Amino acid sequence: MEQRVSLITLAVADVERSRRFYVEGLSWSPMFEDDEVVMLPVGEHLLLSLWSLEGFTAEVGEAPAPGIAPIALAHNVATEAEVDIVLQQAAALGAVVQPAQRREWGGYSGYFRDPDGFRWEIAMNPGETGAFVLP
Amino acid sequence: MEQRVSLITLAVADVERSRRFYVEGLSWSPMFEDDEVVMLPVGEHLLLSLWSLEGFTAEVGEAPAPGIAPIALAHNVATEAEVDIVLQQAAALGAVVQPAQRREWGGYSGYFRDPDGFRWEIAMNPGETGAFVLP
Repeated sequence: MEQRVSLITLAVADVERSRRFYVEGLSWSPMFEDDEVVMLPVGEHLLLSLWSLEGFTAEVGEAPAPGIAPIALAHNVATEAEVDIVLQQAAALGAVVQPAQRREWGGYSGYFRDPDGFRWEIAMNPGETGAFVLP
Repeated sequence: MEQRVSLITLAVADVERSRRFYVEGLSWSPMFEDDEVVMLPVGEHLLLSLWSLEGFTAEVGEAPAPGIAPIALAHNVATEAEVDIVLQQAAALGAVVQPAQRREWGGYSGYFRDPDGFRWEIAMNPGETGAFVLP
């Protein structure tokens, strides 16, 4: 198994609500969308798939647990100022935001929650891993 | 906010167990590791971060729900035969596997669960999105 991820699929309660947040709110462009799923390119050879909970459960099996998901997606930027700007944008779209702060690992980051509660970390990381993930 | 994901962070119960599965089992190479986290490059400008549940909860907030996570990661390959080979590799590492089958969207895929139950879909997708995610 090669060391790569092709898709990140999030099971969402309301695909239209997710579409409004990601496509209309953030102005992201889908590669494919229908009533069941919205697929967004989020990197080279990488798609973020927002799939209806019903479709997800039917194919993947067992219904997911309600509540806080044990994952976070991160979006890294080059400066602390950009971290604050993105978090302000998310707040303006109605997302719950945890304001950014300095972290013991040397960076500066905060979080917001998408409409299903999936957490996005917005981060400036001055270290090696931070340099690796910046375009 | 630009249309890209920098990190996928999974909250894991036992970092050493995750390291054994991903680093020793799958032979994936970490970019960074300590007692709290293992970070694996899984694409251009993309890291998979396996972070202790304690560290995750302390920074991200509220403890995640136990049970089945509402996400899946996908690893796409070019042929049906490769799908079966990767699922066999996962089974040999002790992962629970749902054997591959033809899907109504035109492809062929199956799933396995990592040590925390996070699902990986191993897929061959002959369509446009399948072509996009292949290296």
